[in-house]
Amino acid sequence: MSIDIMIEDMAKDAKAAARLLRKIERDTKDAALRLMADRLLQRKKDIVRENKKDLALAEEKGLTSAMIDRLTLDDKTIRSMAEGLREIAVLSDPVGEVTGMWKRPNGLMVGRVRIPLGVIGFIYESRPNVTVDAASLCLKSGNAVILKGGSEAINSNLILEKILKESLEETGLPQNAIQVVPSTDRKAVRILLGLEDYVDIIIPRGGEGLIRFVAEHSRIPVLKHYKGVCHIYVDEFADMVTASDVCFNAKVQRPGVCNAMETMLVHDKIAGDFLPLIGKRLREAGVEIRGCPKTLSLIPQAVPAEEADWAAEFLDLILAVKIVSSMDEALDHIDKYGSDHTEAIITKDYERSMKFLREVDSSVVLVNASTRFNDGNQLGLGAEIGINTSKLHAFGPMGLEELTTTKFIVYGNGQVRS
Amino acid sequence: MSIDIMIEDMAKDAKAAARLLRKIERDTKDAALRLMADRLLQRKKDIVRENKKDLALAEEKGLTSAMIDRLTLDDKTIRSMAEGLREIAVLSDPVGEVTGMWKRPNGLMVGRVRIPLGVIGFIYESRPNVTVDAASLCLKSGNAVILKGGSEAINSNLILEKILKESLEETGLPQNAIQVVPSTDRKAVRILLGLEDYVDIIIPRGGEGLIRFVAEHSRIPVLKHYKGVCHIYVDEFADMVTASDVCFNAKVQRPGVCNAMETMLVHDKIAGDFLPLIGKRLREAGVEIRGCPKTLSLIPQAVPAEEADWAAEFLDLILAVKIVSSMDEALDHIDKYGSDHTEAIITKDYERSMKFLREVDSSVVLVNASTRFNDGNQLGLGAEIGINTSKLHAFGPMGLEELTTTKFIVYGNGQVRS
Repeated sequence: MSIDIMIEDMAKDAKAAARLLRKIERDTKDAALRLMADRLLQRKKDIVRENKKDLALAEEKGLTSAMIDRLTLDDKTIRSMAEGLREIAVLSDPVGEVTGMWKRPNGLMVGRVRIPLGVIGFIYESRPNVTVDAASLCLKSGNAVILKGGSEAINSNLILEKILKESLEETGLPQNAIQVVPSTDRKAVRILLGLEDYVDIIIPRGGEGLIRFVAEHSRIPVLKHYKGVCHIYVDEFADMVTASDVCFNAKVQRPGVCNAMETMLVHDKIAGDFLPLIGKRLREAGVEIRGCPKTLSLIPQAVPAEEADWAAEFLDLILAVKIVSSMDEALDHIDKYGSDHTEAIITKDYERSMKFLREVDSSVVLVNASTRFNDGNQLGLGAEIGINTSKLHAFGPMGLEELTTTKFIVYGNGQVRS
Repeated sequence: MSIDIMIEDMAKDAKAAARLLRKIERDTKDAALRLMADRLLQRKKDIVRENKKDLALAEEKGLTSAMIDRLTLDDKTIRSMAEGLREIAVLSDPVGEVTGMWKRPNGLMVGRVRIPLGVIGFIYESRPNVTVDAASLCLKSGNAVILKGGSEAINSNLILEKILKESLEETGLPQNAIQVVPSTDRKAVRILLGLEDYVDIIIPRGGEGLIRFVAEHSRIPVLKHYKGVCHIYVDEFADMVTASDVCFNAKVQRPGVCNAMETMLVHDKIAGDFLPLIGKRLREAGVEIRGCPKTLSLIPQAVPAEEADWAAEFLDLILAVKIVSSMDEALDHIDKYGSDHTEAIITKDYERSMKFLREVDSSVVLVNASTRFNDGNQLGLGAEIGINTSKLHAFGPMGLEELTTTKFIVYGNGQVRS
């Protein structure tokens, strides 16, 4: 069978499964999720055996130790996948929630009710635990999913799919609700991106290259996340301790993620006191500071920032620092170089905090808190399938609710239009 | 100046205007809308003069009288545009609405607040009154808009733009919030669809050809509406009078629109009584009936339906009729041939009404009411910029709220992640 036909068949099967899935009540979905957790733990040996095949191939190919680390499934990661499944089972089911209902002058009762999106194409890179995460979020929200993972994780992904499917079957759910593309052929992604008649939405997760490829070639709507060039603006009226703690946390606690701070903007009235203090703390943590000319005079170890640094997502212990002469200059800078991802202000001033919340157009805007909180779990969505930095459908972190849409339901008693 | 540079400059100007616009409070936007209404009435002569240029060209080109009718701006249509503006001014402003706020265990207050989408590209066909409709909805929801209308309405659109811009300026709003593409070059659409760095969303309104062109070439997310193949299922437990009145209304009251009924599915236990009755009434209204074999025996004047009729959007006094032996057969038929637009059931049975509302996956699902109610005004959204038949962002009719998105706002007091 050609890969074109195989992927199209998978998509058709997913659509049929989605039609069944949208009628399934929460109890059954939760039972399947809990069974999956049990089965993953029971089948640990099988999972590790298949994962070892991937690891052996990875070593042959000379993957870095960081990549091999991400690829590895062991006792700890398998337990963590099982816990993840049980956590999703506890979350409330968005499907069927009536988000509003009102009466029209002609007596029609009009409401909006949450329904699944349908079929989700999920395209991601190496970590095989993402297979279980994504599958469970899609199942709980009533969607069928087609998972296209990285080729280096193919054996791990297929054994995980097998175990998940067995649990679906035992619970009486359609097995095609969860499908892993059983091919490492790169053409599979292109084919999937063209199946607009069967697939409702594409969610890519991975590096900027993958995301750009998907966005460019998809005929299906894509919820995508390019990059996080996150700013903290330390206002002239900032509390020094808060500013120092929050900026340090946002840069150092986990520098390799999208919600880490990449540029710090400091009001010049506080820069003289604040920059030497935070500069010392950051340098002691190994952070390289790339500063504007004024910054260089206050942090001697800083190197001059180049134009490209203001737009850079370093994902590393590097920070761009700029002194601004007003809050408006900070807002203009964010508008010019920001990525609409996450921005924070540190201030004790009420008006400025309100202005920042109002005027900054990013998916998450914070006052006196770390940018690291842009995360579905941290914000209280319960779980996260990704972060969307385009404004359509769901701006920011996406949880279960964001994997649904609403339809209108209308209760009439014979109304006609005149 | 080349058209590429012109359109790109318009998009940049729109983005700058959008940034200003999102800070504007409701009072100012409403004042601008009311002023626009006044100015349209005051400048009636100028509008009619420019419109006459379009009409003269249209006659030269030999456009049909229906097309010329749609193109014409006279006392009545100008008054109606002004009324439309005043109605939008009365609607509540979605921007700034906090749709939820909750407290996290670490004390963070997390909320979601409505913000404008940004820059909307609106691509449409002949009616120049749509220029004012779309511009007013975008303005009220805080969005800048680039309007690309039909070439045959260019003079009318440009005089309308001039009047709207003057009102923006008088109210202190950015003039580039509303821009009409001043060119009839077909390349303009292609260029606009590629400007993903400046334009947040594309809304096309027009025939299926236009929509498909836009969907195929856009690098920007598109909210689109292909077609409405709307069904009414007349259940075995339908009230005969309700069924007859609703089906007649859905087919005959305005057959040329997307929410008119195109296929009627009738349970065979009621078909013997119902079909001769409704058949007579529809035929008297000039409706051609294309039926399944069983239908032909109950409505002698009916002609045999071909396979293509089940998927057809007739937009005319033509109706496909099929007798089904169960509700599930009706649901399967809708699933196979429907367009996710609008579906209704006529029944007195509680369980069946609930099952239909639950299982039909269309943007509007009705019980005992006409499909013609799928309309933003009729459903209580206040106004409508279009209907979206894809599930992302806003499924179904889109009003002001659907021209916004939400961002997260977070009130902290020094929280960091550990």
